[in-house]
Amino acid sequence: MAGMLLVVSGPSGAGKGTVLRAVMDRRSGMFFSVSATTRPPRPGEQDGREYFFMDGKTFSELRGKGGLLEWAEYAGYFYGTPEGPVRERLARGQTVVLDIEVVGGAQVMERCPEAVSVFLTPSDERELERRLRGRGTESEETIQKRMARAREEYRFMDRYRYIVVNDALGEAVKTLEAVITAEGARAERRPEIFSQYREKTTV
Amino acid sequence: MAGMLLVVSGPSGAGKGTVLRAVMDRRSGMFFSVSATTRPPRPGEQDGREYFFMDGKTFSELRGKGGLLEWAEYAGYFYGTPEGPVRERLARGQTVVLDIEVVGGAQVMERCPEAVSVFLTPSDERELERRLRGRGTESEETIQKRMARAREEYRFMDRYRYIVVNDALGEAVKTLEAVITAEGARAERRPEIFSQYREKTTV
Repeated sequence: MAGMLLVVSGPSGAGKGTVLRAVMDRRSGMFFSVSATTRPPRPGEQDGREYFFMDGKTFSELRGKGGLLEWAEYAGYFYGTPEGPVRERLARGQTVVLDIEVVGGAQVMERCPEAVSVFLTPSDERELERRLRGRGTESEETIQKRMARAREEYRFMDRYRYIVVNDALGEAVKTLEAVITAEGARAERRPEIFSQYREKTTV
Repeated sequence: MAGMLLVVSGPSGAGKGTVLRAVMDRRSGMFFSVSATTRPPRPGEQDGREYFFMDGKTFSELRGKGGLLEWAEYAGYFYGTPEGPVRERLARGQTVVLDIEVVGGAQVMERCPEAVSVFLTPSDERELERRLRGRGTESEETIQKRMARAREEYRFMDRYRYIVVNDALGEAVKTLEAVITAEGARAERRPEIFSQYREKTTV
């Protein structure tokens, strides 16, 4: 059985990282896709862990031959999802997780309509603002930038199949796990059941 | 938020009754739809618990005014799902469970395309046959009738959204619960999230 491509988006402050780590700790057969970038590594970042770090020429060659599921440019650097490792894991039946912003998410959904898309958000927008403001140590300008970025993310919310509310971590983890379990039980993902009973159904 | 209409079908031997009882014991907000029938009550059956028992005239009046979600005739008696209690519970946001055979299931899916449909089956057809044969105390004719009935059920399997495998009760219960949780997180069921963030998304 082919695996499942799981696209997870949501504004900064939605807690994507924490929820995804918890789900991946609890389930086997999950593979977290690592993006490629032309941004230089920061101290402590490892090639192949946070990102695949590559120069501009390598990145544009990869993009040119259609080797990226999605890509985007931010602040002068390129970011993208290499398609090879994703396809390879899907072929092995694994669940491949893309933690991705909404423009990239939209590209993936267009290229892979069978992708399972999840938008993570707090249920209350005042809570989102509280989280974006953080501990109050950052400038109003930084906070306003984050808010603008969050608004951009919400503009794409209606393209996602599921909305997972993250007000309490445990509930969000449980809901995301339920989405993965339920999607695994969708009829089109169980062809072996149909073939098992084909003889019966054609009698 | 409107509730969820859950259509559960599967051959005799799939263990629908056991799985549904376990799920209903574990979750609140679930309502099990009771069918109407013109068959007389058997000893121990209570009106409104196993069935709503009614005479032919009452049944056909209910059917005539469109008051049945689905109906069918077996062995000279009529069976059907009264729509009123179902709509009432859905309006209260409850999950309404229909344990129903496939012809009735198809009628419900046609009338309520938003229904969540689940087909329950053992993964192995030899296991199904073992279960249908039971303890070997029944006549071959009875067994062959059950097998023919099961074949009829499998002919409709491809109309269902989910295939829940019941090889181990715990797994089947967990999967059906995941379907209910995940379907509750579908974007179209979370309009309150969209309205919460509407202001942000239209800026």
